[in-house]
Amino acid sequence: MHAFLGNAQLPSTPRGDRLEFSEWYAEVLRSAEIMDVRYPVKGMYVWLPYGFEIRQRVVEKLRRKLRETGHEEVLFPTLIPETQLKKESEHIAGFEDEVYWVTHGGLKELDEKLALRPTSETAIYPMFALWIRSHADLPLKIFQIVNTFRYETKHTRPLIRMREITTFKEAHTAHATEEEAEEQVKEAVEIYSSFFDELGIPYIASVRPEWDKFPGAEYTVAFDTLMPDGRTLQIGTVHMLGQNFARTFEVTYETEEGDQEYVYMTCYGISDRVVASMIAIHGDERGLVLPPDVAPYQVVMVPILKKGVRRKILERAAEVEEMLREEGVRVKVDDRDMSPGRKFHYWELKGVPLRIELGARELEEGTAVVFRRDELERETYAFEELPDVVPELLEDIAMELRKRAREKFEKGIFRTDSPEEARRLVGEGIVETGWCGSERCGVRMEEEFGGDVLGTPYPEEDTEFERCPICGETAEYTVRIAKTY
Amino acid sequence: MHAFLGNAQLPSTPRGDRLEFSEWYAEVLRSAEIMDVRYPVKGMYVWLPYGFEIRQRVVEKLRRKLRETGHEEVLFPTLIPETQLKKESEHIAGFEDEVYWVTHGGLKELDEKLALRPTSETAIYPMFALWIRSHADLPLKIFQIVNTFRYETKHTRPLIRMREITTFKEAHTAHATEEEAEEQVKEAVEIYSSFFDELGIPYIASVRPEWDKFPGAEYTVAFDTLMPDGRTLQIGTVHMLGQNFARTFEVTYETEEGDQEYVYMTCYGISDRVVASMIAIHGDERGLVLPPDVAPYQVVMVPILKKGVRRKILERAAEVEEMLREEGVRVKVDDRDMSPGRKFHYWELKGVPLRIELGARELEEGTAVVFRRDELERETYAFEELPDVVPELLEDIAMELRKRAREKFEKGIFRTDSPEEARRLVGEGIVETGWCGSERCGVRMEEEFGGDVLGTPYPEEDTEFERCPICGETAEYTVRIAKTY
Ligand SMILES: [Zn+2]
Ligand SMILES: [Zn+2]
Repeated sequence: MHAFLGNAQLPSTPRGDRLEFSEWYAEVLRSAEIMDVRYPVKGMYVWLPYGFEIRQRVVEKLRRKLRETGHEEVLFPTLIPETQLKKESEHIAGFEDEVYWVTHGGLKELDEKLALRPTSETAIYPMFALWIRSHADLPLKIFQIVNTFRYETKHTRPLIRMREITTFKEAHTAHATEEEAEEQVKEAVEIYSSFFDELGIPYIASVRPEWDKFPGAEYTVAFDTLMPDGRTLQIGTVHMLGQNFARTFEVTYETEEGDQEYVYMTCYGISDRVVASMIAIHGDERGLVLPPDVAPYQVVMVPILKKGVRRKILERAAEVEEMLREEGVRVKVDDRDMSPGRKFHYWELKGVPLRIELGARELEEGTAVVFRRDELERETYAFEELPDVVPELLEDIAMELRKRAREKFEKGIFRTDSPEEARRLVGEGIVETGWCGSERCGVRMEEEFGGDVLGTPYPEEDTEFERCPICGETAEYTVRIAKTY
Repeated sequence: MHAFLGNAQLPSTPRGDRLEFSEWYAEVLRSAEIMDVRYPVKGMYVWLPYGFEIRQRVVEKLRRKLRETGHEEVLFPTLIPETQLKKESEHIAGFEDEVYWVTHGGLKELDEKLALRPTSETAIYPMFALWIRSHADLPLKIFQIVNTFRYETKHTRPLIRMREITTFKEAHTAHATEEEAEEQVKEAVEIYSSFFDELGIPYIASVRPEWDKFPGAEYTVAFDTLMPDGRTLQIGTVHMLGQNFARTFEVTYETEEGDQEYVYMTCYGISDRVVASMIAIHGDERGLVLPPDVAPYQVVMVPILKKGVRRKILERAAEVEEMLREEGVRVKVDDRDMSPGRKFHYWELKGVPLRIELGARELEEGTAVVFRRDELERETYAFEELPDVVPELLEDIAMELRKRAREKFEKGIFRTDSPEEARRLVGEGIVETGWCGSERCGVRMEEEFGGDVLGTPYPEEDTEFERCPICGETAEYTVRIAKTY
């Protein structure tokens, strides 16, 4: 273990309001060695080994879910020719202020400018047009995990708003019928739901309002979670593209009857933000708290060495290590020449779910002290129990993190039909109120309440609200508003 | 399984001379669905699912080897500021004709141009300067697996010469002393050797001549393999950087005595070319032949269905599948509605190491027919033997591929002290001859023999040659010359 950022320090600030959360977040990324922000390009950062390993485990989990549901993995080039990127007019209108352009190769100006992909629809769909011939080729379900680029003008922040999104999983599908595409949207929502559930990240899914949908989509379902400062973070999106891109890129198929039809398409994405929200939601004043599934080490063992029994304690530690490894637990013995207290502190900061302390007393009693990172509590177990107890505890921690986060999340959702209350509560969390459905009232709400419209519940549900708080007309929908990242 | 490129076809050409190999290679990439070359940017291609999975297994193998030897994985940004890239003068001189430049973000011209990394020394070493404080921080050994970009003006070709190298594993290390850095060069050579060995890729390691070393390095050790058309392909490089970059980027450490010293550095890389050479070297007129270690499926089962026993045959296939899976074998039952002959053809093209054929006769006799892709031969085994036999056969195939490739490789190395013979043999393979060691004679050899100087043997060995064939002076070295990719 190389110390990339020097000695780890306790985050200096508690969490709570916006500034405090912001400081806590920056400090925990630094001291737990997730990312180094000192790279000399704004909005671009360096993944450090510990952070990188967490990222890899998160990525692998997502990859597995996609493969199990019949998605095939591909890899497209990073660069998209200008004419191709600009072919779909709504799409480019949504991205043109944010696209990085490559104009030169060596000292020579390129014949055609090349865009660093902001997302890959316009790279992928022309190939779909080549790959799809007949109904037998459908559905086509692919994904890739790549870096994408956005020239962000807003305040940048590691894993939340970056100019190079280092981890963008984007899936793209094509279908014969609209119904099948709608089913695919549902499948995507299910995949993402179970993915976030397993990481203990609470969310709500909303249909984004017209003015905030994906450029070129028919509609967008978005997953939002709530950060500790009361702002929402969009952590996943699922887009119904209809036949829009199919028409632009001539993606057609031959039906069983021999006709040529345009395919229906969907696409859906998840980025580094899943790691950001996992850190922000589970973390505490001691640092990271990692879900056991994605923790680089699930158990760290700290031998409390004492003269005379030193060798025996280390032997016992090696024994426990072996026992746990056989149970498939990722375990590490920390035998560095450092006080136990500093090691406790170090691994708490790094969010390791369980710590096992082994000293002279435990050796004598045939026990071990097990410390839970989530509850910050110790319990003593008999030595032989460990292979049973540890996997159970890890599962329990996962459930506990999820439950705790969900409870907190629910408390951050407010329902009101009073405009005054809505205005007051936006910023505390997500406000739900009635909506007539008009864009005019939606935009007015954003102005008056001081937040962004997240959209209406997905799946659709009847609203409990009677009136639109802006125009006073009948509420057709429940609408969600929050301050957003 | 979606058929991305339509029905797979037998490669239409045998292999042999340059044109034939070229056609075979393009055809096999296409028909085995490794890469789609129809992406509309020159030198940039699309990895298809089957190719991508092979790539992933190759990458994982390399990643494991690096982790086991204490390398930590990081991920740096893609873009490098112009001033930083240009800081090391020799380095930028070597790359400046090949760098892609990002000049605009949205509609706005950037304050400073950003390079798409051609390689990451100049991105990484300024961070080394921040990370390394004292001797206790050394050695520092990191790696990343990323895409890199070169504006190639030569003929581009998938996996061999691309403008976006989609898979570039680059390791970077820093050490307190020159000796430790030299040891690191040796470790890197060992890691790469065992990596290529396990994939059955034969190679020689050479110290590149001064005029062909890595820009900014003290010396470069390169691995070359031999393609079927007699040209060599550079598949890995290890660079001793000395204190060169350390001085440029101020990478210093405090010694035990309290002095500030520059570190010694090394870096080493492997790219997509390892996949290219694996395909080219093991493949045959039926298509791919994959080393079992990296084959997406190691065994494919083709049930030969017959009315009456159809259900029983499928049950037996499922039984075998289960048995083999328990042995850790990656196995697939191909129950598509297609003739067995077409399935044979399909999976041979895809290079699956073993095929198991199960029909009425085998069912009755309690046997299975096992077909080896490398030898194109069938053998019958008792049903119960399969869990033992299959893993053994897979191991044997790996060894056989390696042995066969090594034998062919050795036949492509020629030793001669006659200039006429050297001229004749360059193009058939690698020519070894004497060399006085002067750059003048080296360059003359390139002109006269019509090849490139690969360099001198690594590790260094006494030459068996007496004279330099150009100047007639005493040969100080053995030198290697070949036509290269
Ligand atoms: Zn209204
Ligand atoms: Zn000479």
